[in-house]
Amino acid sequence: MSSVNLTALKASAEDLERRYAKFSDARLSLDMTRGKPCPEQLDLANGLLTVLGSDYRAADGTDCRNYGGLDGLPESKALFAAFMEASPKEVLLGDNSSLALMHDTVARALSHGVPGGDGPWSRSPVKFLCPVPGYDRHFAICEHFGVEMVNVDLYEDGPDMDRIEHLAASDPAVKGMWVVPKYANPSGATCSARVVERLAAMRTAAKDFRILWDNAYAHHHLTSSPPALASLLDACKAAGNADRVLTYGSTSKVSFAGAGIAVMAASEANVAWMRRHRSRSTIGPDKLNELRHVRFFRDMDGVRAHMEKHAAIIRPKFDRVSSILRRELGDTGLGTFTEPLGGYFVSLDTMDGCAKAVVQMAADIGVKLTEAGATFPYGRDPRDRNIRIAPTLPNLADIETAMQVVAVCVKRVSLKKLAG
Amino acid sequence: MSSVNLTALKASAEDLERRYAKFSDARLSLDMTRGKPCPEQLDLANGLLTVLGSDYRAADGTDCRNYGGLDGLPESKALFAAFMEASPKEVLLGDNSSLALMHDTVARALSHGVPGGDGPWSRSPVKFLCPVPGYDRHFAICEHFGVEMVNVDLYEDGPDMDRIEHLAASDPAVKGMWVVPKYANPSGATCSARVVERLAAMRTAAKDFRILWDNAYAHHHLTSSPPALASLLDACKAAGNADRVLTYGSTSKVSFAGAGIAVMAASEANVAWMRRHRSRSTIGPDKLNELRHVRFFRDMDGVRAHMEKHAAIIRPKFDRVSSILRRELGDTGLGTFTEPLGGYFVSLDTMDGCAKAVVQMAADIGVKLTEAGATFPYGRDPRDRNIRIAPTLPNLADIETAMQVVAVCVKRVSLKKLAG
Repeated sequence: MSSVNLTALKASAEDLERRYAKFSDARLSLDMTRGKPCPEQLDLANGLLTVLGSDYRAADGTDCRNYGGLDGLPESKALFAAFMEASPKEVLLGDNSSLALMHDTVARALSHGVPGGDGPWSRSPVKFLCPVPGYDRHFAICEHFGVEMVNVDLYEDGPDMDRIEHLAASDPAVKGMWVVPKYANPSGATCSARVVERLAAMRTAAKDFRILWDNAYAHHHLTSSPPALASLLDACKAAGNADRVLTYGSTSKVSFAGAGIAVMAASEANVAWMRRHRSRSTIGPDKLNELRHVRFFRDMDGVRAHMEKHAAIIRPKFDRVSSILRRELGDTGLGTFTEPLGGYFVSLDTMDGCAKAVVQMAADIGVKLTEAGATFPYGRDPRDRNIRIAPTLPNLADIETAMQVVAVCVKRVSLKKLAG
Repeated sequence: MSSVNLTALKASAEDLERRYAKFSDARLSLDMTRGKPCPEQLDLANGLLTVLGSDYRAADGTDCRNYGGLDGLPESKALFAAFMEASPKEVLLGDNSSLALMHDTVARALSHGVPGGDGPWSRSPVKFLCPVPGYDRHFAICEHFGVEMVNVDLYEDGPDMDRIEHLAASDPAVKGMWVVPKYANPSGATCSARVVERLAAMRTAAKDFRILWDNAYAHHHLTSSPPALASLLDACKAAGNADRVLTYGSTSKVSFAGAGIAVMAASEANVAWMRRHRSRSTIGPDKLNELRHVRFFRDMDGVRAHMEKHAAIIRPKFDRVSSILRRELGDTGLGTFTEPLGGYFVSLDTMDGCAKAVVQMAADIGVKLTEAGATFPYGRDPRDRNIRIAPTLPNLADIETAMQVVAVCVKRVSLKKLAG
């Protein structure tokens, strides 16, 4: 962050108050909180609604209306194996929520343990490494189960690997970590090949250490030349640590957010482990919905073509957020923000100690932002500076207004703080 | 069971061998193991495949393609409240599997505890009362989590209440029990009003005792004058034990077995408890599939009319099983069997110590039956006599053959045992 030009800021104070009052008078009701697709994005997949017609049979003749099959149809496993860059033997399909697969991974590791371990994790205290800022629903799972979370900084090329390696190697209570490896929520960071390699090869004090690799935005590019992400599953296999990683994905932001398909890809031992647990807990996933997805997308070319249509809709929204933040905050030293190459979020860092006040001030005049702190374990941002912005759902005019409000609030709060 | 006419049995020994050899020569491949709907039953709901058209909006305008909503759309909660004879505030919709809701109930009680309790059940040994014969997947959940199962006899009017009351009142480790209250799997028993009343009012040593009331066959009548089942939820409320029961249902055997809707109905406190846990573990159920069900069935009149069509298809299959068993075993004293008024199964009790051998002997000549013992906790039928027969999937000709094979095997095994 460049140094603050306090003189310039003070000179603009009156203007700021005028702008704030104008927004206040406008009685806004804008919501930038949720990483939800907009209706135009959902429309792209409307073919899913009718693609099945009355043909309910899988390629092998399976009647998808009936019971049977615990981890997915052969053709959907083939499609989602390609989706996850794994082999069909390494994938297992879930219901509509990859979060559920991650939750169940943690729950089952705690209650029963994982392959290569010594039984239930819950027998002794468990810690997870949490790259920050990160995804609140990952942290909520840990908090729910009493798993202690340890913050680790997330850089542009992935988590602080020196610290990860140190913590993983020195503390046997460190049983796992969360990573959103591509277009991280909220910073947009993508793990470099070197980070992937170090994660795969590092020494861990816990022999049953697990990386929960939430590749939620694997195919969600905003640019035509997306950054590469190496396969952590392949890297782990190469390093002799095949069981270290479980990877997750879904079509929530590909097809329909409420009615997509979730998938886990991992070593065959880990997949067998999850399958065994699922054999106790479910009749199996919805095969008709799998069939809809296979018929609609056909293959990864279909998925990629579809994702380009998504990008065409949301890229202008991200561009608008960037242009306003650049114009308003660019040379002020009051905030830094990401300009992601994919994913669903923009991460804005204010000066330390300002985020909560900015979010509150914006809310006061009708602009809802994700709660400050939400991107950190326990909802506590130690520097109180991170704000997550979700540009996909609102239209451009609303984004324009909301981001101006955010900028005005950042400046007002900063000025107050600096004037102290 | 009437006394065995050994003389008559011996006299028929040669005939038995001839029949067995004939079936053996026929190289049969018949499967009576699974309570699966037959294709004609599934066809009844084919309208579900196309009923949505491209109209993805709920009555209140909700875009069912997107995220949002944790426990069901208002209109689906209304339909499924009626389905469960509860109020909409008392229901929560799941994915396609009520088994998953039951599994999660047990898992979460163990990891976190339930309303009115003192924390996680897993802190000390837990026992469940299991009416037998019963449903193997209930027992598998208990076994998976190390919950000790205690057999209690299931009579025609429900479980042995004297024993249930004694065990529940005397042992604080007894935290719960399974019940399939209507057309029990496999016996077809329906709990009487008196049993419901006693379950609701009985004293329990554990103050957070829970009844898992799996009302899987609530609307699955085989007769036009079905037996009444009193609402245990209402009875528990009246007895001041509102939180004692969680009830479960699904459309697995109403619409599509692999793509139906699961539902839980319970006190508002129990629903809030499950909702809180689900808020950590899922993005919510598939609202499009809810919408399909609401549009297709409309209301409970629609469900009831639909279930009559099911009955018309499967009643002749149950009749065929009955007529063969009556003809073959009726006066032999070698077996008793149920003639259920609803549900999916027929329960056959052989003489003690014969069930395993009968199932094996039938398998040897190509007739697969549910594994003997499966209807008991730990797969152990203490009297080795119970065999579960699932008549819905095969056609009448196959049922005819399979049941003759079963009868012949029962007689051969019995003869061998008696001649012993």
